Amino acid sequence: MFESAEVGHKLDKKTYEAEEPKLRDALLKAQIALLQKASFPVVILVSGVDGAGKGETVNLLNEWMDPRHIQTVAFSDPTDEERDRPPMWRFWRALPPKGKIGVLFGSWYTQPIVDRVNKKLSTAAFDQQIDDILDFEAMLAAEGVVVIKLWFHLSKDAQEKRLKSLQKNPKTRWRVTDEDWKRFKQYDRFRKHSAHVVQRTSTGHAPWTIIEGSDEAYRSLVAGQTILDRINAQLSRKSVRESRVTAAKSYRKPDTKTVLSALDLSKTIAEKNYDAQLEKWQGKLNLLCRDPRFARHSLVVVFEGMDAAGKGGAIRRITGALDARQYRVMPIAAPTEEERAQPYLWRFWRHVPRRGRVAIFDRSWYGRVLVERVEGFCSEADWMRAYAELNRFESELTEHGAVVGKFWLQVSPEEQLRRFKEREQVDYKRFKITPEDWRNRKKLPAYEIAANDMIERTSTDIAPWTLVEADDKQYARIKILKTLCDRVEKVLKS
Amino acid sequence: MFESAEVGHKLDKKTYEAEEPKLRDALLKAQIALLQKASFPVVILVSGVDGAGKGETVNLLNEWMDPRHIQTVAFSDPTDEERDRPPMWRFWRALPPKGKIGVLFGSWYTQPIVDRVNKKLSTAAFDQQIDDILDFEAMLAAEGVVVIKLWFHLSKDAQEKRLKSLQKNPKTRWRVTDEDWKRFKQYDRFRKHSAHVVQRTSTGHAPWTIIEGSDEAYRSLVAGQTILDRINAQLSRKSVRESRVTAAKSYRKPDTKTVLSALDLSKTIAEKNYDAQLEKWQGKLNLLCRDPRFARHSLVVVFEGMDAAGKGGAIRRITGALDARQYRVMPIAAPTEEERAQPYLWRFWRHVPRRGRVAIFDRSWYGRVLVERVEGFCSEADWMRAYAELNRFESELTEHGAVVGKFWLQVSPEEQLRRFKEREQVDYKRFKITPEDWRNRKKLPAYEIAANDMIERTSTDIAPWTLVEADDKQYARIKILKTLCDRVEKVLKS
Repeated sequence: MFESAEVGHKLDKKTYEAEEPKLRDALLKAQIALLQKASFPVVILVSGVDGAGKGETVNLLNEWMDPRHIQTVAFSDPTDEERDRPPMWRFWRALPPKGKIGVLFGSWYTQPIVDRVNKKLSTAAFDQQIDDILDFEAMLAAEGVVVIKLWFHLSKDAQEKRLKSLQKNPKTRWRVTDEDWKRFKQYDRFRKHSAHVVQRTSTGHAPWTIIEGSDEAYRSLVAGQTILDRINAQLSRKSVRESRVTAAKSYRKPDTKTVLSALDLSKTIAEKNYDAQLEKWQGKLNLLCRDPRFARHSLVVVFEGMDAAGKGGAIRRITGALDARQYRVMPIAAPTEEERAQPYLWRFWRHVPRRGRVAIFDRSWYGRVLVERVEGFCSEADWMRAYAELNRFESELTEHGAVVGKFWLQVSPEEQLRRFKEREQVDYKRFKITPEDWRNRKKLPAYEIAANDMIERTSTDIAPWTLVEADDKQYARIKILKTLCDRVEKVLKS
Repeated sequence: MFESAEVGHKLDKKTYEAEEPKLRDALLKAQIALLQKASFPVVILVSGVDGAGKGETVNLLNEWMDPRHIQTVAFSDPTDEERDRPPMWRFWRALPPKGKIGVLFGSWYTQPIVDRVNKKLSTAAFDQQIDDILDFEAMLAAEGVVVIKLWFHLSKDAQEKRLKSLQKNPKTRWRVTDEDWKRFKQYDRFRKHSAHVVQRTSTGHAPWTIIEGSDEAYRSLVAGQTILDRINAQLSRKSVRESRVTAAKSYRKPDTKTVLSALDLSKTIAEKNYDAQLEKWQGKLNLLCRDPRFARHSLVVVFEGMDAAGKGGAIRRITGALDARQYRVMPIAAPTEEERAQPYLWRFWRHVPRRGRVAIFDRSWYGRVLVERVEGFCSEADWMRAYAELNRFESELTEHGAVVGKFWLQVSPEEQLRRFKEREQVDYKRFKITPEDWRNRKKLPAYEIAANDMIERTSTDIAPWTLVEADDKQYARIKILKTLCDRVEKVLKS
């Protein structure tokens, strides 16, 4: 893998001095075009062997281009806010918006490689993490993010020489730490596992460029040219979507029976039982979320369902069981300008709760495969790939200890109509009913198809959908509370 | 102060049951109107004696209103990201946007009172902190934020009874901690210093409401009614600005001599000296920012000046001296949608650097008293009050260890014209020159008046303006680098 970067690539001074100004000029122009077009962000990952010129290259890029539109982020130890959330949270935080360049010094590759070198990861676990990275980068690419991955390499001899020469010079001595020498001793293991990662993650949409780091002129030109080519290639595309394959049309089954149509919406709860049940399950949920063991977990609750299905009321029965300091409710409407400048999952990552907290989403990331699909706000290719992306997102949450509860509230068209009319009558409920709601009602069949597909594809062991017969609000609320209690209890006991 | 909240206020059950549904209904309606109008945010501070029903009231508010549009934040120990920034940063983070309600459980009042009770603050220092709070809240009010301050009180006897009764009940025992009893022992000191704070900070725009906490019905109704009245009062105003006084017209001095016109723009640096000087000062700045003592500080650099004054070039000479991992450059353009929903300083607080980091602002919070004043984007009252607000912001930065360097780059109209024309000729500089720039040029005299006022009012000992003669770019860059080195060095040595 790295042999080609151990041959002693060099560039003579004259060539460099002839090429550098042209490259610099072209990079600056590309950066300006990127900024003005503002249709995609660029993420540059800087990885590789210590002493191979990573820092120098990053500084050079900031010198060549306009540093006002480059965000450089170096990842060292996570902060406590980061540790309290899934590992990828800190990288989502650092993503640049459309039009900007983000330079990530250290990245999602660092920890898996370090852990593997230190034998904290088995081969299988290591490969699992690589799979996760592949999925993550495929998602970024599909969202139009240009991911440029630079691997700076040095042969073992070259690294030793480099560290020694840095150490000899009083001006650069500070840059060589004991940690560097410790890592140098593991050079062979590092090389082996890095090669494996680089090989497996050099994909069409996000290939690695391996750069021999010993000669400054050589590595600078190669790094700069790689970045220039990738940005220009993307700029010259008519549309981000141009190269995408058309998604397979989803096959419609020949009968009309679906998980939703099969629900028995006549289920009710006796009025006299409701109060006792409500108190019981709210009390239980309260205790569970105050359990000391819950401090290692978090609870993420998602509500989806037709208009007037009772999502708000159900949410209030959950918040009523909890201390206000512990939860946050996120009503999901149209994304803001800052959110539109990022991959669609970004705005949900923003609200991932810390350990010990509860986050309740009134509509959610499933908008992608519901409203965005039905209304045509995104292409079929986009919503088709979303199922896997949403499953992955939720697995990142659960792997970090979150309990993910997802509820689909189903009401019959007749009951929905009754509630709409009721809302129009009640003064303070009137704001809840808009012409939009009436329009959406006409699209019920399309929403139902989308909901069925969603449930089929995203009801997983780790984050199953709970289908809630919601014609009787009270029945629905109790079922939701009970389900949450069961889910949390199971996790606390495990 | 608190006598009126120790008389044993009570409400009989019948009255409560008659009033509560009306209040609840009215609160929900007010919340909806607030949300739909989305013209101001509401901040509710919940403070007072432990055991006086603070938590219960917050939960009740979330029950009465729609929890989807309430953000409850409890402040306990700051996270490491918070500790690395000025104390107010965490409160700025928690401010709700327009249309929403933020409930702050613990607030900017907590630490000063606790510190005074524990004798960590002298009377004078305590009063200084109260002054800071007064300024902060006045700013919030002027920005249209409705600040509702609730102080829940209990007499000493009542608090003791309350803690004991919570402790007796197995269900509530967990809520009483050793810390609570420790604080109870300091009741008298706490009462005395709290009274002082509440007295001094009960202002017209943000008065305290003191609520006796022993009777649940009484305290709930009083709290709810207070909030309702304040929200409705603000909703019924035609405009946020309605009640504001007109700012005093600033007096124009009878001659035309200003600090800017007095600058000698013919200052230059000999070409042959430039390279040596640049290397010298960049090297020095690099060393200073890598000095271990710098880890306790941060550097905030602000650039202002006319178009084509050379801000970008100067910034690149600073970033060229630093490691890209250490700095972030913020180009300040029009605020985003999320930023417009907050007080104007919010978008700068977002970018306050952590300790050990450098933040460079290409245009800044001074836009308020420059472009916003000249173009009429804000009222005279708004930019008039901004001078003090900006000084305060910077003093919060410097008190936390930041060095604040502010540079005004002054070019002569002739030199500006020459640069405009040059930009139009050079291919990749062309994007820098827009019709807007030509328009702004016509407003040079107005900008110069605004700049003079700004310098007069915001050049402080802790954060002085450096006026830079910028007709010679090289001269300007060296002056800026040297100034920054001097400033940082002085702080490291102190």
